[in-house]
Amino acid sequence: MTNGNDGLRFALAQIDTCVGDLDGNGEKVLEFTRRAVSDDATVIVFPEMTLTGYPIEDLAFRATFRNAAWDKANSLALRLKAEGLGQAFVIVGTVGTDDERRLPRNRMVVLHDGVVWAGYDKHFLPNYGVFDEFRIFTSGERSLVLDIDGFRIGVAICEDIWQDGGPVAELGRQDIDVLLTINGSPYEAGKGHVRHELGARRASELHAPLIYLNQVGGQDDLVFDGGSFVIGQDGKMLERSPQFVEDLSFWNLRHDADSQGMSTVVPELGTDEEMYRACVLGLGDYMRKNHFEGVCVGLSGGIDSALVATMAADACGGEHVWGISMPSRYSSQGSRDDARLLADNLGANYRTETIERVFDTFQEQLHLESVAEENIQARIRGVIVMSYSNSKGLLALAPGNKSELACGYSTIYGDAVGGYAPIKDLLKTKVWDLARWRNGYAEAHDEPVPIPVSSIEKAPSAELRPGQRDSDSLPEYALLDQVLEAYIELAHGRADLLADGFDERTVDTVMRLVDRAEWKRRQYPLGPKVTSLAFGRDRRLPVTNAFRE
Amino acid sequence: MTNGNDGLRFALAQIDTCVGDLDGNGEKVLEFTRRAVSDDATVIVFPEMTLTGYPIEDLAFRATFRNAAWDKANSLALRLKAEGLGQAFVIVGTVGTDDERRLPRNRMVVLHDGVVWAGYDKHFLPNYGVFDEFRIFTSGERSLVLDIDGFRIGVAICEDIWQDGGPVAELGRQDIDVLLTINGSPYEAGKGHVRHELGARRASELHAPLIYLNQVGGQDDLVFDGGSFVIGQDGKMLERSPQFVEDLSFWNLRHDADSQGMSTVVPELGTDEEMYRACVLGLGDYMRKNHFEGVCVGLSGGIDSALVATMAADACGGEHVWGISMPSRYSSQGSRDDARLLADNLGANYRTETIERVFDTFQEQLHLESVAEENIQARIRGVIVMSYSNSKGLLALAPGNKSELACGYSTIYGDAVGGYAPIKDLLKTKVWDLARWRNGYAEAHDEPVPIPVSSIEKAPSAELRPGQRDSDSLPEYALLDQVLEAYIELAHGRADLLADGFDERTVDTVMRLVDRAEWKRRQYPLGPKVTSLAFGRDRRLPVTNAFRE
Repeated sequence: MTNGNDGLRFALAQIDTCVGDLDGNGEKVLEFTRRAVSDDATVIVFPEMTLTGYPIEDLAFRATFRNAAWDKANSLALRLKAEGLGQAFVIVGTVGTDDERRLPRNRMVVLHDGVVWAGYDKHFLPNYGVFDEFRIFTSGERSLVLDIDGFRIGVAICEDIWQDGGPVAELGRQDIDVLLTINGSPYEAGKGHVRHELGARRASELHAPLIYLNQVGGQDDLVFDGGSFVIGQDGKMLERSPQFVEDLSFWNLRHDADSQGMSTVVPELGTDEEMYRACVLGLGDYMRKNHFEGVCVGLSGGIDSALVATMAADACGGEHVWGISMPSRYSSQGSRDDARLLADNLGANYRTETIERVFDTFQEQLHLESVAEENIQARIRGVIVMSYSNSKGLLALAPGNKSELACGYSTIYGDAVGGYAPIKDLLKTKVWDLARWRNGYAEAHDEPVPIPVSSIEKAPSAELRPGQRDSDSLPEYALLDQVLEAYIELAHGRADLLADGFDERTVDTVMRLVDRAEWKRRQYPLGPKVTSLAFGRDRRLPVTNAFRE
Repeated sequence: MTNGNDGLRFALAQIDTCVGDLDGNGEKVLEFTRRAVSDDATVIVFPEMTLTGYPIEDLAFRATFRNAAWDKANSLALRLKAEGLGQAFVIVGTVGTDDERRLPRNRMVVLHDGVVWAGYDKHFLPNYGVFDEFRIFTSGERSLVLDIDGFRIGVAICEDIWQDGGPVAELGRQDIDVLLTINGSPYEAGKGHVRHELGARRASELHAPLIYLNQVGGQDDLVFDGGSFVIGQDGKMLERSPQFVEDLSFWNLRHDADSQGMSTVVPELGTDEEMYRACVLGLGDYMRKNHFEGVCVGLSGGIDSALVATMAADACGGEHVWGISMPSRYSSQGSRDDARLLADNLGANYRTETIERVFDTFQEQLHLESVAEENIQARIRGVIVMSYSNSKGLLALAPGNKSELACGYSTIYGDAVGGYAPIKDLLKTKVWDLARWRNGYAEAHDEPVPIPVSSIEKAPSAELRPGQRDSDSLPEYALLDQVLEAYIELAHGRADLLADGFDERTVDTVMRLVDRAEWKRRQYPLGPKVTSLAFGRDRRLPVTNAFRE
């Protein structure tokens, strides 16, 4: 290990872990540590809850799991030493147990010289948005400063730097040389800048550079984007790792604050590219971690299924994508042509399963009309998609976007069928943006353009009755998406929305649609809880709710 | 109002509120207060979060909603006075706003003489099981003692008495005459005794009787059972209200601790009756509060759908129940006869929709085999059930029980279809218990026995292939349910289960089934979160989870 003039060499091991996979995550720590040490690093930093994966939710309450994680940390320390890596300081996250109350902790441990050499427990436990940590963990009470090769390294875990006070404030009185943080910070559009600003502020307060090591990878509906960085106390970016891929970067800490090491600073991505890559990584990791090798998706010729199939081809290769065209009497020839063209562009498997005969057979028996007649077409398609899923072991993809899901403009057990919905969090206008971005990317790289232009340009239609248009039932998407953003994301009430300048009719339409769609978004049935633990009670808004603004 | 010799007269208004229905809940407060005052009560006690309903989840974050609730409390106080009820002390729960931080509070207010006369904010915010209050509310800091007609009344809200310390401990130093608590305590089998013991302990500690006023009614998947009570400092039950119905009872507080008033003490229900009534109330309230007048359910002739249809008939009347028999080539004649007999017994609407022609049409096109062939039968039935739901505006009921849902022994988008699952939280052995109890109840009351005996006694089968039995795929239910109880409810790990005396093969089978069923229980598709607020991310266990004990 070479320090001396170069100061202390850190390796930023931005890895993709899997929840519950103690063995696999441990192997990955070993592999990255080998590479880091061979590049002369002394301190190797891994993300929050490295060994367990993150977030572990109620797994934390299983004593068996906590014991297995503890065993893994110890055996890993021994194995590192046995491989001649004992002199490195390997910083990993894991689950711990509160000594007094036997409750779970969100813990950082330092593996060194064959033992768990030091430990630190997360103090601030986020309890908002996607986070439920206060429910699961108890808080650590102590700050920690590591003394390595004459450098004083303060440590913190994720939320500890987002809140004022606590252990980071305490570190401000400890004259540290660097603040090392390990994180599991999920991707959100624009969050990179927020992290950078926060990092710069803490570095300035503590008069020390800050290392921000973030997890990368998809875990259920969260995507961690990586983008780890080191920022100086003057706000200068000293290192930035790429987003959406595993990475091993290096940075040297020096005693002289004015001449800190500079390392590779990867340029930032544009918003559309960032979102697109987030969706692809989320889908790809969900497949890999749940052992799916391929996907099936209904191809309508419309923009939503076209974008979903393209993302899938980018995630697992076109040859693992099964596109199923399921035309009816209401499907235009243009739609069928677009579906086939898309599949050809992607190199995907393509099948046509007309729904006409089954639809006629159902109707001879049931004689359905209006919405019931529309829904049964979508449900026949749902049955066909699931039959491909069952027969071939494919992950069924639901092509719904956030605008239609928010408004309940989809058929439960119909087009909403699937195990994963790659664009469920993209408003419709953003779906168009990403489709255009993806085609533009292909053009710029001299690759075949995947998405047929007519899928992007034609007026959206569910094609469940003659001449149907989305705009028969919904405001135009350009307007709808603005109202949804204000009503859902900003929690504006009716009076706020009118003050925002939206007209009364649109506001009332959108509010009514969104309020009534709550039960549709919950596609598992509700039911009473009569014993101590029921399955799947988990939502944020009551389904039964009579409040009208 | 007559106090004097009778002391202070309390009315226990155990009402059924609806989340978000500020007007409806306010009207109910008015109506019960009129009745209480006409029976000479001075203090009228309503449940936790009376005006808003409970639990309100993220509605708490909408300032519009909090403002409307505040207006409702004030206008209600004025209206009470205008009606000549201003001298009563009306104690209701509502949502408040923390003055400093503008965050939501779980608040009790006293309406008196036309104004909001006093207020108290809940201190301990439960953050486990079905409760997420710490996420939503901030804690109150002060205890409150009301002085009414010379009596000192300490107050608390629900969790405040479940935790040691806090405002209730403070009340112990205040020489109070009674502890008045308002609650939203969901039903769990056996919880009544736990509440009584807790009440007796607090009454003893505070040297004062305790009033426990609980909400009644269903709210999504929670059922509140009422069962309000007053318990003396010597542990003697002084009043107990019935469970599962709205109720107005009275109790007089006297200065002489040794001669506290006695009132009606309703006898406790047996466990099976309690569970049955919980399920019926949950379903009935879900229908009423979401404006469904009838239900549809597939009738297989088996015990699960038979119990569900019987509960539905008890909840809304047999004439509002649509039972659909959907036989295939694999359905036995006995099953068809049992389905028809059940519908006749219940006075339900009965339809037969054979699935044969649609199944054949699908198969001519798709040529499915094995599990895919089994699943498509269940999914055709799901489409038919939903077509009745759509055509007639009926709530579709999913008949799954907890044993099969836990093991994934059901078809997603097939028999799992529905908006409400009345027995989703009952293990299979408990399904049989409740069916026998319901038939026995009918016999004891000289009513027609609803459930055919052969539905109870025959071996369970999904009838999706010739001669199929549940026991081909699952351990016998008597054994399976014991393992499920230990693995899920008690969180026993593999070693614990073996130590419990279960054999290794059974343990490994059940653990594998339960671990793999997680994604099935989440019937909405997952998808990546790319903006600040995604829909429906809310679960307790990760779907992606590689941990194996």
